[in-house]
Amino acid sequence: MSRKVFYGSDTFGIKDYRFFQMNSLSFNEASYVAEYRVLYGDTDTMGQAYYANYLKWFEIGRAELFRKGGFSYREVEEKGIYLPVIEAFCKYHEPAVYDDIILIASKFTLERRIRLRFDYEIYKKNNLTSLVATGYTIHVCLNRQKRPVRPPAFLLEGLQRASEE
Amino acid sequence: MSRKVFYGSDTFGIKDYRFFQMNSLSFNEASYVAEYRVLYGDTDTMGQAYYANYLKWFEIGRAELFRKGGFSYREVEEKGIYLPVIEAFCKYHEPAVYDDIILIASKFTLERRIRLRFDYEIYKKNNLTSLVATGYTIHVCLNRQKRPVRPPAFLLEGLQRASEE
Amino acid sequence: MSRKVFYGSDTFGIKDYRFFQMNSLSFNEASYVAEYRVLYGDTDTMGQAYYANYLKWFEIGRAELFRKGGFSYREVEEKGIYLPVIEAFCKYHEPAVYDDIILIASKFTLERRIRLRFDYEIYKKNNLTSLVATGYTIHVCLNRQKRPVRPPAFLLEGLQRASEE
Amino acid sequence: MSRKVFYGSDTFGIKDYRFFQMNSLSFNEASYVAEYRVLYGDTDTMGQAYYANYLKWFEIGRAELFRKGGFSYREVEEKGIYLPVIEAFCKYHEPAVYDDIILIASKFTLERRIRLRFDYEIYKKNNLTSLVATGYTIHVCLNRQKRPVRPPAFLLEGLQRASEE
Repeated sequence: MSRKVFYGSDTFGIKDYRFFQMNSLSFNEASYVAEYRVLYGDTDTMGQAYYANYLKWFEIGRAELFRKGGFSYREVEEKGIYLPVIEAFCKYHEPAVYDDIILIASKFTLERRIRLRFDYEIYKKNNLTSLVATGYTIHVCLNRQKRPVRPPAFLLEGLQRASEE
Repeated sequence: MSRKVFYGSDTFGIKDYRFFQMNSLSFNEASYVAEYRVLYGDTDTMGQAYYANYLKWFEIGRAELFRKGGFSYREVEEKGIYLPVIEAFCKYHEPAVYDDIILIASKFTLERRIRLRFDYEIYKKNNLTSLVATGYTIHVCLNRQKRPVRPPAFLLEGLQRASEE
Repeated sequence: MSRKVFYGSDTFGIKDYRFFQMNSLSFNEASYVAEYRVLYGDTDTMGQAYYANYLKWFEIGRAELFRKGGFSYREVEEKGIYLPVIEAFCKYHEPAVYDDIILIASKFTLERRIRLRFDYEIYKKNNLTSLVATGYTIHVCLNRQKRPVRPPAFLLEGLQRASEE
Repeated sequence: MSRKVFYGSDTFGIKDYRFFQMNSLSFNEASYVAEYRVLYGDTDTMGQAYYANYLKWFEIGRAELFRKGGFSYREVEEKGIYLPVIEAFCKYHEPAVYDDIILIASKFTLERRIRLRFDYEIYKKNNLTSLVATGYTIHVCLNRQKRPVRPPAFLLEGLQRASEE
């Protein structure tokens, strides 16, 4: 089965849209991909990116997925909706090192009606068969009083639209 | 069943040893506990600790468990053994905020002979029934050539000793 | 001339008070000293602490100076006073590496009636003649509306008291 | 006097070259400008970017200046030249907040034959009259044995070329 990733142009600099094949990976549908260049400050004594930074990169992927859905996460908060993380997982496959450009592919799914789940895959841009990390984060919706609420319709529609095209 | 955590004195400042009861938590055995005060720079716009920082705190817990086992992780690397993370998971229960003192309880187990697993629980020091986060990290052993090797005996013995008392 | 630093017990773990001599350094008066152990995540590919982290450590020193003055910075914010940084400087003398315990000495001075200036010196605990870094930060006072205000009396008195003993 | 900044296309996404006028700022010569979007994890409880992160952003500006000069800093290290920071300064003008796109303008000058000085200016992309921060870092050259050496010719020529156009 062919597995395609739709690489969209974004604020982090991917210049053109393209499809390409990916085998043995979970992203078999169109998804959004952001780009980031690993800083010296992201690395550690082992000469690799420190493991906590991958969660920051997941944030980049997530933020760009929101934007593709028609609004930034900043705008979501301005509407009084907060999306704290309740769970995060990362599997480290191949280390990213200083100055690598990584691509962060993100996908959204709604779980049990109230949990927003984002799945991520990180690749090296100069070698797209090189899987750096996979993982996910799970979020819930809080209102301004920090009480749990159902995810509002605009949010779900935007994120689902972003994940489908 | 009574669940006890053994809080040991450590370099981060816990002054005295004590036992206390913890219900409904997984740490039902003696374990090691480190301490950390949440920095302003650890927090985010939501007024809480940013989710990636919890993995840094897991590192603190892990490092102190090594030390309790008789050697620092720095000494492990000096012997030519590296322990990169291959998996990390964190469940966020109650947010830590600026200036909170958190306690990081850590436990070691060996999985499938080659995977070093560390489980963590984070509490607020001023309210030990307040569970902040739980999680784990899984590590493998590499030698100086960055090839996978069996965990050396000194490492396993030290970590097991640290987890038992 | 004898130059003394007053090392106070603090939440980061210094166990006992002591005076000691320091030559050729600027801290010739009693000051407060906090302690921190360098994390793996603080280091970079060069095997040293990444330069931005020193500003985090300045925050630790500053926070403990506040506490010595009778209130935490959290309490200052709860009173509606915010102290954003307007200037930061750091001179890097000798690199801190993974697992080093560093001591952060801090001193307060008021400049031009409205600028709070904190000077810092960072040492290695296991070698107090080893100066790691020196620097300063300058802060102003804002109220809840984020308007500049004169530093309130309780703040100045506390910080001056903390710097004098 | 007209003050021009030359905005170059870069990997962080600036699409096209352009000149524009800047009054009252120090960058009156062509310089290089990189782009970065402020992460949630970069902010703090005050709802602004935490002050230490600006030094990370200086790193981005510096790295792109190297690249414009014909080589990445990674390549410099591969040639056995290391450029640790010996001094860093930042003046904070207007806070950057979550999701802001900032532009980091960088300029190189050689000081006293051996000190590499980089000056930085950070703006908000959506309001180029909004100066966020200014600052500098000073670096020296070390060889593989971590001994101070004169900056090699290729380095100086590249950085000067990058700063001139």
